[in-house]
Amino acid sequence: MNEPAARRGRGRRGGGGAARRAERTAISVETAKYIERNIPCYEVLGEEALEIIETNAETLLEEVGVNFIENPVALERWRQAGADVEGERVRLPRGMARELIRTAPAQFTQHARNPERNVVIGGRNLVCAPVYGPPFVRDMEGGRRYATMADFEKFVKLGYMSKWLHHSGGTVCEPTDVPVNKRHLDMIKAHMTLSDKPFMGSVTDPSRARDSVEMCEILFGKEFVRDNTVMTSLVNVNSPMTFDDTMMGALEIYAAHNQACIISPFIVGGAMAPTTVAGTLTQVLAEVMAGISYSQLVRPGAPVIFGAFVTSIDMNSGAPTFGTPEAAHITYGAGQLARRLGLPYRSAGSFNGSKLPDAQAAYESANSLNVGLLSGVNFMLHACGWLEGGLVSSFEKFVMDADQLGALHHFARGVDMGENGQAMDAIREVGPGGHYLGCAHTQANFKDAFWRSEVLDYKPFEQWFEEGERDSMTLANARMKQMLENYQQPPLDPGIAAALEAYVAEKKASMPDAFG
Amino acid sequence: MNEPAARRGRGRRGGGGAARRAERTAISVETAKYIERNIPCYEVLGEEALEIIETNAETLLEEVGVNFIENPVALERWRQAGADVEGERVRLPRGMARELIRTAPAQFTQHARNPERNVVIGGRNLVCAPVYGPPFVRDMEGGRRYATMADFEKFVKLGYMSKWLHHSGGTVCEPTDVPVNKRHLDMIKAHMTLSDKPFMGSVTDPSRARDSVEMCEILFGKEFVRDNTVMTSLVNVNSPMTFDDTMMGALEIYAAHNQACIISPFIVGGAMAPTTVAGTLTQVLAEVMAGISYSQLVRPGAPVIFGAFVTSIDMNSGAPTFGTPEAAHITYGAGQLARRLGLPYRSAGSFNGSKLPDAQAAYESANSLNVGLLSGVNFMLHACGWLEGGLVSSFEKFVMDADQLGALHHFARGVDMGENGQAMDAIREVGPGGHYLGCAHTQANFKDAFWRSEVLDYKPFEQWFEEGERDSMTLANARMKQMLENYQQPPLDPGIAAALEAYVAEKKASMPDAFG
Repeated sequence: MNEPAARRGRGRRGGGGAARRAERTAISVETAKYIERNIPCYEVLGEEALEIIETNAETLLEEVGVNFIENPVALERWRQAGADVEGERVRLPRGMARELIRTAPAQFTQHARNPERNVVIGGRNLVCAPVYGPPFVRDMEGGRRYATMADFEKFVKLGYMSKWLHHSGGTVCEPTDVPVNKRHLDMIKAHMTLSDKPFMGSVTDPSRARDSVEMCEILFGKEFVRDNTVMTSLVNVNSPMTFDDTMMGALEIYAAHNQACIISPFIVGGAMAPTTVAGTLTQVLAEVMAGISYSQLVRPGAPVIFGAFVTSIDMNSGAPTFGTPEAAHITYGAGQLARRLGLPYRSAGSFNGSKLPDAQAAYESANSLNVGLLSGVNFMLHACGWLEGGLVSSFEKFVMDADQLGALHHFARGVDMGENGQAMDAIREVGPGGHYLGCAHTQANFKDAFWRSEVLDYKPFEQWFEEGERDSMTLANARMKQMLENYQQPPLDPGIAAALEAYVAEKKASMPDAFG
Repeated sequence: MNEPAARRGRGRRGGGGAARRAERTAISVETAKYIERNIPCYEVLGEEALEIIETNAETLLEEVGVNFIENPVALERWRQAGADVEGERVRLPRGMARELIRTAPAQFTQHARNPERNVVIGGRNLVCAPVYGPPFVRDMEGGRRYATMADFEKFVKLGYMSKWLHHSGGTVCEPTDVPVNKRHLDMIKAHMTLSDKPFMGSVTDPSRARDSVEMCEILFGKEFVRDNTVMTSLVNVNSPMTFDDTMMGALEIYAAHNQACIISPFIVGGAMAPTTVAGTLTQVLAEVMAGISYSQLVRPGAPVIFGAFVTSIDMNSGAPTFGTPEAAHITYGAGQLARRLGLPYRSAGSFNGSKLPDAQAAYESANSLNVGLLSGVNFMLHACGWLEGGLVSSFEKFVMDADQLGALHHFARGVDMGENGQAMDAIREVGPGGHYLGCAHTQANFKDAFWRSEVLDYKPFEQWFEEGERDSMTLANARMKQMLENYQQPPLDPGIAAALEAYVAEKKASMPDAFG
């Protein structure tokens, strides 16, 4: 395996004096390794239920089929593969999708420019990435407002500083002050230069996916990108059963370059899918099977992820609702289906419908985060910062959620059943009526025994009262500011940084601004 | 089975005219049936780990033993049963506890004065009861203050009005304005008269347990109480491995009267038990086995519950912490151990360490509530209203948590795999690119398809903004007031009500006030 170009710049095989100086002065930022589950997954569906859903999904693919819109190349690929193509409708003979999916890898490594931040997506692992897509941001001082590139950069910095977050994500908010046709350049440059964690590419136009690949070739080196996966990007399905040319265009470019895509039905139950769990799972499975089959037609072996974004709908207001029991059923069920297909799985996140980072936001987020861990999710997009049904990236909630991800890490470690875990000598030593605080076993284990929030409040009431009765939002606001204050840019070879600047400047100059 | 006396008062076999009038004007208050799980439990421990813990627990009982403090009757019972008694230390030969436990029922019915509110504790069921024990209350207007009997009554009314709450609980807060030696009388009277849900008896002194039984004999009739379980009461173990005479005195009275007790180790990890999960589970199992064995020595067949109250400790402040991954491991593991013993299981709740009903309170509570559902808890004390590590009963949080219990109900229903659930015709009807909102299947299922919060906010941003940007606490405060406004006392035979009044007055007059 090659060494990424950005890594070479870190003084290993030379690199500039500026890079060496940057490295010497950089503070060390701790990032936990992605979660490796040492615990079982929760399975809400039995074997019979799973078989019914799998059979029904094949029936849908065969009888109803899926649409590939304005994409003659895709239709031709399907035709040659033996599908039944009629207009833009593609029907797959029973078993065809399952056969095509066999070339998709069960897990893959996404490389970061700092190899210590590489993530292995699939298997028993869970990789957490921040919120994706909101046009608004919110914080305590500024309230809710349209997001800007300055906000975007703050979120990338916060992600870099977040110990339990493994991935820098993609559109952590929409930088609405940059033209639509150019903002992907600034966003990717921000991920590349302000963080050294892995990131996502642009999918809003095939040309922007191509730009993403080219920028990666600058950061990592052409050869390295040819041989390795350096981006995981989000390709939504237009549920029900529709694949549009924009998203498929991006998928085609990424798959051809061996870059990873999440193929993700976007479901608001009762609108884009049936109101029932089994029906939704059937449709999701059919959609994912069609999309992943297509990725393998583009390039057999291209890394892909079984995605499922699910929310239900409030029957009174029509608003999407989050952290609900129905979404939990679907998330657990889809995890089982993904494992049976041998594919990495993306779902869950810090989902909620609240306008503020308050109790509602936290109940709903905790519901979904816990489901994500136990359902076997391998890639959790939106793991922190999501607010107001995805309309808002919240600074305070980003910090609170990212902190909660530490609890998932600790739960995933499972139970130590070794001699130290059994602690029989300690129990014998303390005996009835005794106290463990002073015993040798406690002294030896105390420091690492319990997960501890670095944001929330554990102080005695009197101290908390004297310090101004701060709620979680206020504590998170303070923490957020402290993190940004402590932020130091990870070192990058100045030659690479300059080349990225030049690429972005040239691309921007090559086309007029477009908004919307 | 007899009809409870209170029920007879509801005009079935006569009853006073006042009772009949009360019944006619009473508004109907909907309470959901206790949760019957149609889902699997989550098992964090494998067979080998469970066997190690069970073997180690037997070793503890045999080698270390447990203390029964200032309780010669208990020591004599143990001696006669074949235990090795040395001073106050009781050691149980390997297998003895397991043998004694065999007479404890796997499930039992706790009767309410309104038979529709009866609960079956055990099996796949989950019965939810409110917070228990806090000396303080908090609400938005009054802040944090010592609890009074007026607060207590408000909580009982809120519990009665809470659809997803099955049980009225016990010490929903400590009425500190009533003398310590008399407050149990007012508390039990409040549960009996302000609600018709099942409730808990007093455990703070054996004489108060006896009073609880006598008051039940007035409410239900003597014969009914002789033949049926009408109270489930909380007996804490003084961990490690110690059973004090107060709690055991209460247990002895309840067990002798065939009334149910939760035998519950009270664990702050690192203080009352080892810092490790396996060690804590071993100690918990040994303690519960000793306590339940003892209940069966008092009366074979007495209904009991395997309890586990677990928190960890913050290594910086020494504060107990809640909703943590370590507590989750223990709660899941203890559930597995309880099921292997064939006993009903009590654990989890709306636990949190926050001072306010904010995001921290909700993250931590949601973590614990979800664990409670998936770990197979049969009786969830503290299911709503808990704040500040159990020091505070919060009015707003009571309402928020009680609402969230609805999500547990819906998740527990499992997945409908029937034809309507599969929804194949709906998917065929809508097809690629279509919309489900108008289709027949959606119309038929919409109303009951998705769980819906009755407290939290689903409104469009603009409406929410115009209505004053209310957070969850503010919404819960409004909901709480509305519930209290709509409250109507459930009808009770005036003769029984008068007899309860007289009993309480007489008891109070019989002894001087005692505080602390």
